[in-house]
Amino acid sequence: MLLSFLRLGMGLCTAARQRGVACAAFACLSSRSGILKQEDESLMLIHKWKGAGSALTFAAGILALPLLAQCEQEESATYSQEDVAEHDSPEKEVWVSYEGGVYNVTDFLEMHPGGAQRLMMAAGGAIDPFWAMYAQHKTAEVRELLEGYRIGNLVGGAQQTYGDPYANEPKRHGALIVRSQQPFNAETPVEFLSQAKLTPNDLFYVRNHLPVPKVDSESWKVSVKGEGMRQVELSLEDLESKFKKHTVTCTLQCTGNRRDMFNGVKSVQGLEWSAGAIGTAEFAGARLSDVLAYAGLTEDSLGEVEHIQFEGLDSDISGTCYGASIPVMKALSRQDDVILAYEMNGQEIPPDHGYPVRVVAPGITGARSVKWLARIIAHREESGSHWQQKDYKSFSPNVDWDNVDWGSAPAVQETNVQSAICVPQQGQTVDASDEEIEVQGYAYSGGGQGIIRVDVTADDGETWITADLSPVHDRRNRQQFKAQPQMQSYRFCL
Amino acid sequence: MLLSFLRLGMGLCTAARQRGVACAAFACLSSRSGILKQEDESLMLIHKWKGAGSALTFAAGILALPLLAQCEQEESATYSQEDVAEHDSPEKEVWVSYEGGVYNVTDFLEMHPGGAQRLMMAAGGAIDPFWAMYAQHKTAEVRELLEGYRIGNLVGGAQQTYGDPYANEPKRHGALIVRSQQPFNAETPVEFLSQAKLTPNDLFYVRNHLPVPKVDSESWKVSVKGEGMRQVELSLEDLESKFKKHTVTCTLQCTGNRRDMFNGVKSVQGLEWSAGAIGTAEFAGARLSDVLAYAGLTEDSLGEVEHIQFEGLDSDISGTCYGASIPVMKALSRQDDVILAYEMNGQEIPPDHGYPVRVVAPGITGARSVKWLARIIAHREESGSHWQQKDYKSFSPNVDWDNVDWGSAPAVQETNVQSAICVPQQGQTVDASDEEIEVQGYAYSGGGQGIIRVDVTADDGETWITADLSPVHDRRNRQQFKAQPQMQSYRFCL
Repeated sequence: MLLSFLRLGMGLCTAARQRGVACAAFACLSSRSGILKQEDESLMLIHKWKGAGSALTFAAGILALPLLAQCEQEESATYSQEDVAEHDSPEKEVWVSYEGGVYNVTDFLEMHPGGAQRLMMAAGGAIDPFWAMYAQHKTAEVRELLEGYRIGNLVGGAQQTYGDPYANEPKRHGALIVRSQQPFNAETPVEFLSQAKLTPNDLFYVRNHLPVPKVDSESWKVSVKGEGMRQVELSLEDLESKFKKHTVTCTLQCTGNRRDMFNGVKSVQGLEWSAGAIGTAEFAGARLSDVLAYAGLTEDSLGEVEHIQFEGLDSDISGTCYGASIPVMKALSRQDDVILAYEMNGQEIPPDHGYPVRVVAPGITGARSVKWLARIIAHREESGSHWQQKDYKSFSPNVDWDNVDWGSAPAVQETNVQSAICVPQQGQTVDASDEEIEVQGYAYSGGGQGIIRVDVTADDGETWITADLSPVHDRRNRQQFKAQPQMQSYRFCL
Repeated sequence: MLLSFLRLGMGLCTAARQRGVACAAFACLSSRSGILKQEDESLMLIHKWKGAGSALTFAAGILALPLLAQCEQEESATYSQEDVAEHDSPEKEVWVSYEGGVYNVTDFLEMHPGGAQRLMMAAGGAIDPFWAMYAQHKTAEVRELLEGYRIGNLVGGAQQTYGDPYANEPKRHGALIVRSQQPFNAETPVEFLSQAKLTPNDLFYVRNHLPVPKVDSESWKVSVKGEGMRQVELSLEDLESKFKKHTVTCTLQCTGNRRDMFNGVKSVQGLEWSAGAIGTAEFAGARLSDVLAYAGLTEDSLGEVEHIQFEGLDSDISGTCYGASIPVMKALSRQDDVILAYEMNGQEIPPDHGYPVRVVAPGITGARSVKWLARIIAHREESGSHWQQKDYKSFSPNVDWDNVDWGSAPAVQETNVQSAICVPQQGQTVDASDEEIEVQGYAYSGGGQGIIRVDVTADDGETWITADLSPVHDRRNRQQFKAQPQMQSYRFCL
């Protein structure tokens, strides 16, 4: 039914555009609750009909049916690359080409989940290389919706074949559960998470936003700068020799971990993570606070600095790299153990996890622990990156894609408490004749908070059993902490 | 029905005691959920029947009825003070006197909410002075239950009249809503909390555990000591002159705030606070970290120290004073603004609020901000005080008074998020014909966390409105913070 609606919708949209009425032609899965995620800039949108001051209803759509004939005529029109290039602004209309088609996406600009600015990068040109980068666009549904904006064909057809930005991806372990191939996103099978304290590198969840950059560790450098600081460039050898190696065992978690549970209530947008987008590893590297001090930034010399921004080597064809920031006091606090890691579980950082150096910011959502680190900037403002400003934010249930004000909510930093049952798994049947069923799970909290207790119920909250928690180093009362609060596994028997 | 049960229970208990079967004879209101509170060491217990290895049932009780006749004979026996004094241990039985009666409380020791140790303070002697101190014992129900343990009369009757430890309590504002007179506990009318940013001293909630000590500020001193430190004594003048004055506006909250809402679900023990056991004030005083440094304790010289213990001048007749502790890293962190306050909203600390000096530990539950400060001890262990070890702790719903293991849970420190509606008040009727109803409330979180947003629903969660939050200084991104996250008031219209 949805697709039928969409096909009718596309026809209506094309027709309606003639009337200068803005509307949406892309399907999306909107979320009434919690986090609006654009993590893959999916173009899957179900939008409420929006009119320029008036409601566009089904009735109005049906009345517009006669316009469909006019639409068919338009779609056989042909345009040259130069024609497309002339339409590179909202004033002149925004046209793009894809393969052999030409599309007028002016009305869609503000509704693009990745933001109008990102879509404007392709204005007057081909979106092919961008779709090659953000391969989540390459679905039948998204293609069908794009076709709703088609106005004609490109003279000469598709202009060039674009190189595959994902041609050099590293090999991955077959046990990882893939949620998206390009960019690569895969989670750990949950049954591993309640068994081992440390997650092996090969099985650690992978969350990439872009292709994995190929980095030569010998020539790699990270630059550090900020107002009132001296600008420095540090090689891997510098990090290893100039700064005391600090080891921290901590848990990283994707903000979208367990999103599939939302879908059981109401469809939401974003990668459909189960409970495996979380892992614990022993990271080692140079303390960020030591590196910042080396460049002249300490608690006593902050000036106007309020944030430490990070930029990675992973970027798209426009040169936009992944970026994020954390509050400066987090970065400088020795208790918070933020490091520039060059080791993961005793080995060099694997390619998928940020080789050769990544940020590890314990207790903060994974998105801020930038991989393939390239630049550190001490700044008055947060990172201006799309992923800091228009992603990884939480809103009221009354907010949806059509009324979201990204600036009204802060970027997610420290995460709250999390707990998931790993064994038995969702949907699994257990033998009721067994006298005991062992249930396993994990619990974790961000912000440096340890887990005190896990209670479990098998009768909708009538009675509760306290699970056995695996011991973990409680750093809150230890000044010589060696580890941040980690994901703790728990067991209990029913 | 309850009292009938209790009377029968008392008879049964007396009878059962002849059989050497331990049982409870005090009524209590047990809580299935959340915090077990003994804050007033109430002797109101409803205990499940406990037998030494066997269940004591109603049927067994009825069978024991013939023993009641034997009980009546015992209650006319007379004992001297010396007789009572000989029974001062479980091996010899534990006897106490109260007014003109003598009671064998051996079987009750382990069930005493204040702990066996505290009851043992009166072993072999009179409990009169303790009941004068902990006046919550002085109810008809508790007296009736005590009588269940009566074994005879005291020769000469009540030995002496004890002075009223509450003879010198300060005057209190009539608007405070009193929850207990002795010790004094009273809350702010909630409608004030959503209107003014700062709570006036006279209307600030009062939570006392003992009588208010009378302190001469000229001779008052606080002692500071710990292993590896030099022991110092500081007068009020020392605090004001030797250490930079630090001002912090913060919110203090009683751990039991809003307990009355539990009672709506299931009866719980403890002061029946509504939503007014919370307040915000501007406190000023010496930083605790500065005072500790003066005595030789810094982050670099911690040694074995893990906690900073506080002891107050408020004490009971046995000399047991109120005490609490916080983790040393909290005490030393300049970001956490822990101070020894001598000013509250620009005035000297009022008597009810800890005159002349109290601890103010922002973001931590109010119980740790010790009033009428006397001693600071840097120590490897937490405070051994009853209020740290066997109070202010949170347990699983499967824990009750008969199976609580106090050592299994940590002392409450940083509190989680809190939010309450102040206007309209619980049970108030509003005029449905009004076009708009303005709703007011407050929101607060411990642990240095600011409030991001408040959503309100008037239709059981079908739809949500985001409330207007009063602005507050967000310290998380400001290095030159002047205030801790405070209780924020919010408004929204329905």
